[in-house]
Amino acid sequence: MAEPRAATIDGKLAEEFAVPSHAEEAREEMAAFAGRHGAMGRRVVLITSGGTKVPLESRTVRFLDNFSSGRRGASSAEYFIESGYAVIFLHRHRSLYPYTRTYSHVNLLDTLQLQGEGGSSSSGQVVVNQQALPNIAKVLKRYQEVKEAGLLLPIEFSTLSEYLHLLKAAAQALSAIGSKAMFYLAAAVSDFYIPAPEMPEHKIQSSNGPLQISMKMVPKILSPLVKDWAPQAFVISFKLETDHSILLDKARRALDTYRHQAVVANVLDTRRGYVVVVTPETQAELILTDEDVKNEVEIEEKIVSNLTAAHGQFITQQLG
Amino acid sequence: MAEPRAATIDGKLAEEFAVPSHAEEAREEMAAFAGRHGAMGRRVVLITSGGTKVPLESRTVRFLDNFSSGRRGASSAEYFIESGYAVIFLHRHRSLYPYTRTYSHVNLLDTLQLQGEGGSSSSGQVVVNQQALPNIAKVLKRYQEVKEAGLLLPIEFSTLSEYLHLLKAAAQALSAIGSKAMFYLAAAVSDFYIPAPEMPEHKIQSSNGPLQISMKMVPKILSPLVKDWAPQAFVISFKLETDHSILLDKARRALDTYRHQAVVANVLDTRRGYVVVVTPETQAELILTDEDVKNEVEIEEKIVSNLTAAHGQFITQQLG
Repeated sequence: MAEPRAATIDGKLAEEFAVPSHAEEAREEMAAFAGRHGAMGRRVVLITSGGTKVPLESRTVRFLDNFSSGRRGASSAEYFIESGYAVIFLHRHRSLYPYTRTYSHVNLLDTLQLQGEGGSSSSGQVVVNQQALPNIAKVLKRYQEVKEAGLLLPIEFSTLSEYLHLLKAAAQALSAIGSKAMFYLAAAVSDFYIPAPEMPEHKIQSSNGPLQISMKMVPKILSPLVKDWAPQAFVISFKLETDHSILLDKARRALDTYRHQAVVANVLDTRRGYVVVVTPETQAELILTDEDVKNEVEIEEKIVSNLTAAHGQFITQQLG
Repeated sequence: MAEPRAATIDGKLAEEFAVPSHAEEAREEMAAFAGRHGAMGRRVVLITSGGTKVPLESRTVRFLDNFSSGRRGASSAEYFIESGYAVIFLHRHRSLYPYTRTYSHVNLLDTLQLQGEGGSSSSGQVVVNQQALPNIAKVLKRYQEVKEAGLLLPIEFSTLSEYLHLLKAAAQALSAIGSKAMFYLAAAVSDFYIPAPEMPEHKIQSSNGPLQISMKMVPKILSPLVKDWAPQAFVISFKLETDHSILLDKARRALDTYRHQAVVANVLDTRRGYVVVVTPETQAELILTDEDVKNEVEIEEKIVSNLTAAHGQFITQQLG
């Protein structure tokens, strides 16, 4: 039953979505990373993060995009590492990145100072003003430890095509470690696209009058991922809606359709303080209290704590 | 003749494009900036830079965007300042910024080092590795001088609505200094939009099938800008095409239609090494030679040099 479904999507991927030039290299890196950590008994999570770009022209001037800073993916990556996971961070180019994420809004040059101004400035040191980058020494130390330990593998995408091909490559790379792999699919992936063969080559001319865009629905890659590419893995998808009333229903329907392990459901306006983790049997509301906010607790800490516990149970069940 | 045209676009702006919350504050800042520098006899250039975001939903999850890193605007700002101009930098949030632009691709934490590792790291200094940020001491020094001298006023936009309202505010602010004002409209502005009253409130549901988007043409704001808002200013628009064969024809047609002073015409693939500055009487090809590339000369230096000379002549003619 699974064969034709995967074959269909594989065919679509090959025909209608251009393969990124770094797909093969990324696949090898991810396989080596999963193998190395798997051999040490460490769990590995693939986090997807940020929005996807959907070009409207093949020499792209215009594109459709999804609102996403990548904050949830970037902060979750840190909490997964603190929980003992190794992280493959499949993220949109220039979206927020673990550890640097808290400094993304500052202008680098506003945070630096020249030291030894007397003589030639180029011989002096350039020093960080630690008021302008709070906690920088602590964050830098942790970043360097994580890098040293090889616990974070960053892979970049920009377009929907790149995302889809790289996610498939990641799933195949992680299938080698079975139930020790988690997929944490937090990226904001476009539901619509224009197939490569139907795309105009040149910039759409405004002199031709108002614009009519007709877009096809993106194939649901969660289906072959769960059924064929990484059938033993623990898979979490995300649902973001602006309308609260349809949220939980959509989350339950996704679980029914794709048969994966959990959906993290959230509403645009409240997403930083409230999510619901929905599984086939359970439904857990995670909430930031006023106390949490005062203590700078982030909701991603609670999400990751909930899911790593569930992943532990899942692994035990699979072995049992 | 001019009255109804401006009135029409003013009406459209008010009805179909939401006014950004910072419009009034930005208008006052720009007027004060232009007044201060104008009083000192300094020319002022308004640079627009980066692409505009066009929301498809009012609680925005999806939007249409234009490819633009903001590189041309950011580097041009530096050359205008070196040429004695004061610069209002009206740019897309997170697009490239003058002086920091060359460091935008690096991860901050990869460029820093902890000093005095022995004891508690948080008591030590955090120092820049100057190999990782070439010329940082020199660039930082120049950035601080420019900031100190108050020569650069940054104003941010994200959406098309914000861009349009802020450009109008800028034009009105700069009209006070007459021909000493230059408009250097390098931003990649969407030609299409969905009027606010026609926008769906909630996230478009993919379960409703393929997506049909119908977009109206954006009003040509260059027309009231040249005719009504800043009629004495020196105005330069940009044309970016992917098809070389239609480029110069489109540039000439823009000059005929809007009656402004110059069009900088360029083709997507070659835009960093070749542009044509088109005026009603002249056509100047600006090219980076191999020698230029070796010496790290940027095409924006040549563009700015060409246009500041033309602006000088324009000012003289207006006075004569």
